[in-house]
Amino acid sequence: MSTTAEQLTALGLQSKQPFPNSRKIYVQGTDPGIQVGMREITLSDSLVGGDEQNPILKPNDPVFVYDTSGPYTDPDIDINVREGLAPLRKPWIEARGDTEELESLTSTYSQKRLADQGLDHLRFGCLPKPLCAKPGKNVSQLHYARQGIITPEMEYIAIRENTRRADMSAELNFQHPGESFGASIPEEITPEFVRQEVACGRAIIPANINHPELEPMIIGRNFLVKVNANIGNSALGSSIEEEVEKLVWSTRWGGDTVMDLSTGKNIHETREWIIRNSPVPIGTVPIYQALEKVDGIAENLTWEVFRDTLIEQAEQGVDYFTIHAGVLLRYVPMTAKRTTGIVSRGGSIMAKWCLAHHKENFLYTHFEDICEIMKAYDVSFSLGDGLRPGSIADANDEAQFGELETLGELTKIAWKHDVQVMIEGPGHVPMQLIKENMDKQLKECDEAPFYTLGPLTTDIAPGYDHITSGIGAAQIGWYGCAMLCYVTPKEHLGLPNKEDVKEGLITYKIAAHAADIAKGHPGAQVRDNALSKARFEFRWYDQFNLGLDPDRAREYHDETLPKESGKIAHFCSMCGPKFCSMKITQDVRDYAASQELLLVEEQDALEGMKQKSEEFLSSGSEIYHKAQ
Amino acid sequence: MSTTAEQLTALGLQSKQPFPNSRKIYVQGTDPGIQVGMREITLSDSLVGGDEQNPILKPNDPVFVYDTSGPYTDPDIDINVREGLAPLRKPWIEARGDTEELESLTSTYSQKRLADQGLDHLRFGCLPKPLCAKPGKNVSQLHYARQGIITPEMEYIAIRENTRRADMSAELNFQHPGESFGASIPEEITPEFVRQEVACGRAIIPANINHPELEPMIIGRNFLVKVNANIGNSALGSSIEEEVEKLVWSTRWGGDTVMDLSTGKNIHETREWIIRNSPVPIGTVPIYQALEKVDGIAENLTWEVFRDTLIEQAEQGVDYFTIHAGVLLRYVPMTAKRTTGIVSRGGSIMAKWCLAHHKENFLYTHFEDICEIMKAYDVSFSLGDGLRPGSIADANDEAQFGELETLGELTKIAWKHDVQVMIEGPGHVPMQLIKENMDKQLKECDEAPFYTLGPLTTDIAPGYDHITSGIGAAQIGWYGCAMLCYVTPKEHLGLPNKEDVKEGLITYKIAAHAADIAKGHPGAQVRDNALSKARFEFRWYDQFNLGLDPDRAREYHDETLPKESGKIAHFCSMCGPKFCSMKITQDVRDYAASQELLLVEEQDALEGMKQKSEEFLSSGSEIYHKAQ
Repeated sequence: MSTTAEQLTALGLQSKQPFPNSRKIYVQGTDPGIQVGMREITLSDSLVGGDEQNPILKPNDPVFVYDTSGPYTDPDIDINVREGLAPLRKPWIEARGDTEELESLTSTYSQKRLADQGLDHLRFGCLPKPLCAKPGKNVSQLHYARQGIITPEMEYIAIRENTRRADMSAELNFQHPGESFGASIPEEITPEFVRQEVACGRAIIPANINHPELEPMIIGRNFLVKVNANIGNSALGSSIEEEVEKLVWSTRWGGDTVMDLSTGKNIHETREWIIRNSPVPIGTVPIYQALEKVDGIAENLTWEVFRDTLIEQAEQGVDYFTIHAGVLLRYVPMTAKRTTGIVSRGGSIMAKWCLAHHKENFLYTHFEDICEIMKAYDVSFSLGDGLRPGSIADANDEAQFGELETLGELTKIAWKHDVQVMIEGPGHVPMQLIKENMDKQLKECDEAPFYTLGPLTTDIAPGYDHITSGIGAAQIGWYGCAMLCYVTPKEHLGLPNKEDVKEGLITYKIAAHAADIAKGHPGAQVRDNALSKARFEFRWYDQFNLGLDPDRAREYHDETLPKESGKIAHFCSMCGPKFCSMKITQDVRDYAASQELLLVEEQDALEGMKQKSEEFLSSGSEIYHKAQ
Repeated sequence: MSTTAEQLTALGLQSKQPFPNSRKIYVQGTDPGIQVGMREITLSDSLVGGDEQNPILKPNDPVFVYDTSGPYTDPDIDINVREGLAPLRKPWIEARGDTEELESLTSTYSQKRLADQGLDHLRFGCLPKPLCAKPGKNVSQLHYARQGIITPEMEYIAIRENTRRADMSAELNFQHPGESFGASIPEEITPEFVRQEVACGRAIIPANINHPELEPMIIGRNFLVKVNANIGNSALGSSIEEEVEKLVWSTRWGGDTVMDLSTGKNIHETREWIIRNSPVPIGTVPIYQALEKVDGIAENLTWEVFRDTLIEQAEQGVDYFTIHAGVLLRYVPMTAKRTTGIVSRGGSIMAKWCLAHHKENFLYTHFEDICEIMKAYDVSFSLGDGLRPGSIADANDEAQFGELETLGELTKIAWKHDVQVMIEGPGHVPMQLIKENMDKQLKECDEAPFYTLGPLTTDIAPGYDHITSGIGAAQIGWYGCAMLCYVTPKEHLGLPNKEDVKEGLITYKIAAHAADIAKGHPGAQVRDNALSKARFEFRWYDQFNLGLDPDRAREYHDETLPKESGKIAHFCSMCGPKFCSMKITQDVRDYAASQELLLVEEQDALEGMKQKSEEFLSSGSEIYHKAQ
């Protein structure tokens, strides 16, 4: 066994521990093959009366939460990164009978890599045979949806999005009415609703037939807002081991999809390891690798090199491709007077190519060719925003919005091919200009899901751009954005390490969740309600465990009140034992209860009088009854 | 010299260093005594052409930014914490001739503390004699404003708010139109505008006559959004030294005001040290100390104990008092059915008192008596929101809004006494309910400044509540909130340390700044524009230095590209030397410039033709001129 494989096997110890007081449960669909994993958080009892010797306790129902961590947090599943995850979708794909197994990877580049024995130590061990649509077939979820077919993926998603909400109490399900800005989210997500949303292009299910390991998820404004984490080494950066570990780490902290933005050498092999071990959809920007193939010289890019890269990655199982087909030659000069020109890597590569050749972007001119590849593997488009603003000053300018209009045009072409598509957006946008982005995207792209970076609402805080952008992300999520691409504290400064990835993800889970609540997504407030009840009742462990990061919550608490007793003491660390606002509130409740009792007694008295009065009236309103 | 004093003198080394490439400058007002400090950030030159041997450089103008750090970042000023800061407002106060010097502190409690020799080692050395309004006089800035007087404080504030915007280029001053939701911010802040805003109650200048050391600042929706930091030891917590250091630290990272929420012993002495060394207004919640005086038993509180505490603190120089006068007896039972009851400490103390005595809140019944004290020292009200929601579930309920209506009623009473007032608000509020808070506050309180904690937009992230609340703070600041009370990562879990204070402050500076930009506050985008230009031109040091936290930006950058060369290399740490989007953009500019040249040539040709054509027409449109 090679060192690399050994290292990989040893990875993820930290990532693989279940969360405290949590276990993985599976909800079965109509078929026993559909087993939807979610996380059950068990809570301790509430103290509702009695005294220390004889406390009266009331149990709290467990809380179920959406879980992106896949098999990694299920101790019953033995993980071996050399073998990859179980291909849960394999029978579903096979049952559709519209795919065929290829003998080997077909792209020129893949074959070159396979032939290079010097790479054996880096290779993933048990490479599955790639699948491809049978000639003339389209294997996209959109294609099925439009034919009225509810796939197992769709049913899986419906169960997953509901997260057993119906099994939780009305008290936990209480929430404020939302302001949805035109989203229409049903009380319960049904498989048929999933199908409809996919069929009309308002949602996508990124799920390459060559990534059967993934747990299906959906991106659309009428579903829970999702979060993407970017990982990836660079020329200056990290290794295969680190990238796989970052992947698992990302799913642990809530990454709904992961983009592999590697640009270094061995990215072909790194990607294989990532996909085989990923329970979430993987996205890439194929132009990055294509550029490496032409030694980093943008003007040497050709459609043929790019096409080969698409096939290479599609056969590995990449679930969505960022394609910068909207960077048209005529938009490029519009960026010249910007404060920060073109800041998207993909955008600047295509701009350079367009200028060097004085020709239209080949991604645009070959767009239908790309669609043909996408539908043979069910790779979804993530139409790249190559001209997104890199500073507040450049927000919402003609270059950005010109490109968005072209993305709208391309959306319709993709849909003509039954290929799934989402649209990338924002960057740096001040708060007052965010909604215009969302509204324009919905209009130009006919409600195809929007997927935005941030937006960053100010430029002045390098080192804190997870926060400048978390503010914008929460807002655009509220307005209708379907997936938020995270920003880490290292943005603009360097490559994120594991802690940065976690910090970025938690920030974005907060933004996405705040957006779900604000939209009025049914059940969105369950976890808040359960946590606040635990907080108010000094059930410290429950508060930690219901939080997005139980480890940090506990660690912070223990800094001030390190003793075990602190966590069961009925006072909190801010006020100390004698001086506690929550404790005082108990008195208020007692008082109010006594007042209510009083009211009830008064009410009883009134009721009694009313009854008497009615008796009086019905008996003829005579003060003195006649003697009978 | 006592150990305490020695320790204090040694404090703040880290806090006292000037920021890199920055110096303190002073802008003089109409009187040489008005010297408004601000920070000048010097930038390096831009490389605009030439080659490595003969670069063509273009200088960048310095950028001026609002500065809360006072004399601590001016190396020309010798700081001695035992002596306190220079009393810059002293001559202004004296010149008004409406105050008199008291022999000593007059409150019973102050006298008791002074008489206790066991406290000598804790005492601030050079206690100034307290001032009080002469009998019948009102020394509030509101009182002066209503008489048409522009005080030096008002002029200072006007200069400070403009931050030399007029001296910076049009390019730096570019910004997008804002959405101000009814705020009306002039292009230039004049002293008369400050006076008007104070006179109508839309802004306050917290500035106790016993805190002459403070640099005047203003809180109001037509000014820059401000940020407050809470510090304070608790029964379980920290010491005098730590609190003074936290104060200086808070002003370094942008705290516009600081609230001292200490509840432990020696809080009288701690406060003295804090005020004497504070360049920013200090706020307190006097009921905390009053409660200590009655051994923590809320029902033993009396108006007399509270009154003595107000005088004690007013004579020390506290600039604003949080007073929970809106917690009325009838509102208390409204909280009984809440998820998290009453979570404000002050609110729960008053609730308990009301219940125990079954009487109306004595802060409400004695409100006019309190006004009499406030105007004798110019202490501003911060009308406390004792019934703010402690969970999303409790947001915007009848208890919260009932109290807000009462705060509106009390605002009018304070104004009748020419006492300055701001209103405290939020807590936990989901995004879709934030605006209702702001709108109701503006309506009920006639545009008196709003000062809110967060709001936290979700309950599920203990350990990250600076972020859950930063999202809400940016929004409410945009909608019109005048000051944002920060939340640290330790909220709900423990007491913040220095790093937490910094993290909370930077988060809130981001929120406040994002709000300023969104409102369209003139000049708000200057720093963003300068930083983005520096970023785009790979002027790394300028990018760091223009950021809110130069230290962290540099540290993060150096993790990936540790060499000095990295900071002058014309590529960034994300992409590596060969693969850089910003580099490619340079080509776009060259291309666009050549296109423009082409256009200019075409234009010249057209112009030439047009001229010819006009000549032709003016000469009679005859093809052949007659021979003359």
